[in-house]
Amino acid sequence: MKSFESIYLGLPEKREPVKTSGYGEAPINIALIKYWGKRDKQLNLPVTDSLSVTVPDTLTQTTIIPSIASTDRVFLNQTQQSPDSNFAKRISHFLDLFRTHPQQTFEIHTQNRVATAAGLASSASGYAAFVLALNDLFGWQLTDDKLSILARIGSGSACRSLWPGFVYWQAGNRADGLDSYAFALDDTWPDLMLGLVMVTHSAKTISSREAMQITTGTSPLYQAWPATVTAHMHTLRNAMLMHDFKAFGEVIEHNALTMHATMLASWPSIDYRIPETWRAIEKVHQLRREGVPVYFTQDAGPHIKLLFEAKDKAAILAVFPDISPVLLFP
Amino acid sequence: MKSFESIYLGLPEKREPVKTSGYGEAPINIALIKYWGKRDKQLNLPVTDSLSVTVPDTLTQTTIIPSIASTDRVFLNQTQQSPDSNFAKRISHFLDLFRTHPQQTFEIHTQNRVATAAGLASSASGYAAFVLALNDLFGWQLTDDKLSILARIGSGSACRSLWPGFVYWQAGNRADGLDSYAFALDDTWPDLMLGLVMVTHSAKTISSREAMQITTGTSPLYQAWPATVTAHMHTLRNAMLMHDFKAFGEVIEHNALTMHATMLASWPSIDYRIPETWRAIEKVHQLRREGVPVYFTQDAGPHIKLLFEAKDKAAILAVFPDISPVLLFP
Repeated sequence: MKSFESIYLGLPEKREPVKTSGYGEAPINIALIKYWGKRDKQLNLPVTDSLSVTVPDTLTQTTIIPSIASTDRVFLNQTQQSPDSNFAKRISHFLDLFRTHPQQTFEIHTQNRVATAAGLASSASGYAAFVLALNDLFGWQLTDDKLSILARIGSGSACRSLWPGFVYWQAGNRADGLDSYAFALDDTWPDLMLGLVMVTHSAKTISSREAMQITTGTSPLYQAWPATVTAHMHTLRNAMLMHDFKAFGEVIEHNALTMHATMLASWPSIDYRIPETWRAIEKVHQLRREGVPVYFTQDAGPHIKLLFEAKDKAAILAVFPDISPVLLFP
Repeated sequence: MKSFESIYLGLPEKREPVKTSGYGEAPINIALIKYWGKRDKQLNLPVTDSLSVTVPDTLTQTTIIPSIASTDRVFLNQTQQSPDSNFAKRISHFLDLFRTHPQQTFEIHTQNRVATAAGLASSASGYAAFVLALNDLFGWQLTDDKLSILARIGSGSACRSLWPGFVYWQAGNRADGLDSYAFALDDTWPDLMLGLVMVTHSAKTISSREAMQITTGTSPLYQAWPATVTAHMHTLRNAMLMHDFKAFGEVIEHNALTMHATMLASWPSIDYRIPETWRAIEKVHQLRREGVPVYFTQDAGPHIKLLFEAKDKAAILAVFPDISPVLLFP
């Protein structure tokens, strides 16, 4: 039977660490055309392609150190996490793929440095940084494709967090997922800006992983999602090419709303929007009625993320004074 | 060329009124499996079947009188409506189908007597009562099928407002719509109750007619709606047969949410839910978590309608003190 390494890394066998510690860092990314639904839950293989933009000034930094303790020890922002926490369990589970021998343990230090988008540090930057740290520790010297594939196995959207700018994750169609990885796109958009509208400080009540599973399993509308993504992707790529911001904004907002619609039609119904989300969306619509081209996207959480052009920054800050706009192509 | 009468009424030619006034009355109905999307806009032919329950103690009463005025005069709850209002224009447009000669005009008096469901009197009871008044005035002596067809042409869901209890509207597939009418079902549910939760007194911002058109024209998820209705209808009919209230409630709530999901995925996106709607839905979920079986449906407006069994009336009134529960099979 082939080992995980031989299939996924192209390495002949498990390796010992080549260093005393490994380090990796990666930014978060925001999907403009969403990843929603898996064709394989173990390997995080998506049903559709997706397209993201990376957020500058956000970073997860991870150090991994071989340990002599009997279990893994996981630190998040300098606080040790209980081994029973979902956070630590998921990391240990992922590490199982790479341990040289079953008794090998690690100490993992993860720090989220998210200057402008507090609360947004997701598993995407985390697993991307983690895979880079593992690559460093084990001296794998993996190609970008392989790093993206490994990050994907940790957390689907993490495969898009290895590059700045626009990133495309091709779904692939192989059962082993070796053609399902992300890559950077050449497109740039110098005056494109992002602003996070935080509408609550409460943690979300249902994980995106769980929401995705309920949606694909129960939403009668989900069957129309894959073709929707194909159409939206086509529109978005054209808008990016032409720098047509109205077309760009409309399709990303439509795509996000369509994803949330597939959730609303699930049973039990899933609705990440809370009254404050609704009010923030109303403000976006009001700005547009006043002629300010601003659009939003929303992930599996109550916050919305505004996309706009640098020229409209002041008008948008007047309505959303708490956002800290960032240039996406600084 | 065949006249409207010969096709739709089976009458050989246009008739003069046989009385000095015609009278009709009809109740409102609430769709449990929604009518959402038309295959023919002129004839209000639906894409799918739908199933409603009629609300007792609601009534629209309409009197129609041949007039000598130069234009129709339309009174709603004793107030004359401007001939330029959508309300009056739509009625005059419908009357055009029946005028003996183009100069013939009418005076129409419509009264909404909605004891328990204020704010809900929709075009459904209105056009059902109107058609009954026309039938009386012109002495057509139409069968129920024909009355339902005529009411449908006035306003789709009006075709279901001619009977008490559960009513089924079969979509039909003829281009002329002669097989698209409603009929009463034998099923009853003696302890089934309805309560309207009014969340605002503002008028809705977009008509259901317009919302339906935007949805069918732009929502990428709408294509999955027809098969959803078929599945939901099957589940509902079984639940009605078995008097399985949990299955009944779940499928009507799921159906309503799925309809709203098709709207959310439209462009422009349509969302009838306001923060107060969200809070009312939260209360419904909380009641269910506490073991009280209560479910809701929602039409093209911000209010929700609760469905529950008589035994749970007190528990529901404790959380929703402003509703006036009605027995649907008194």
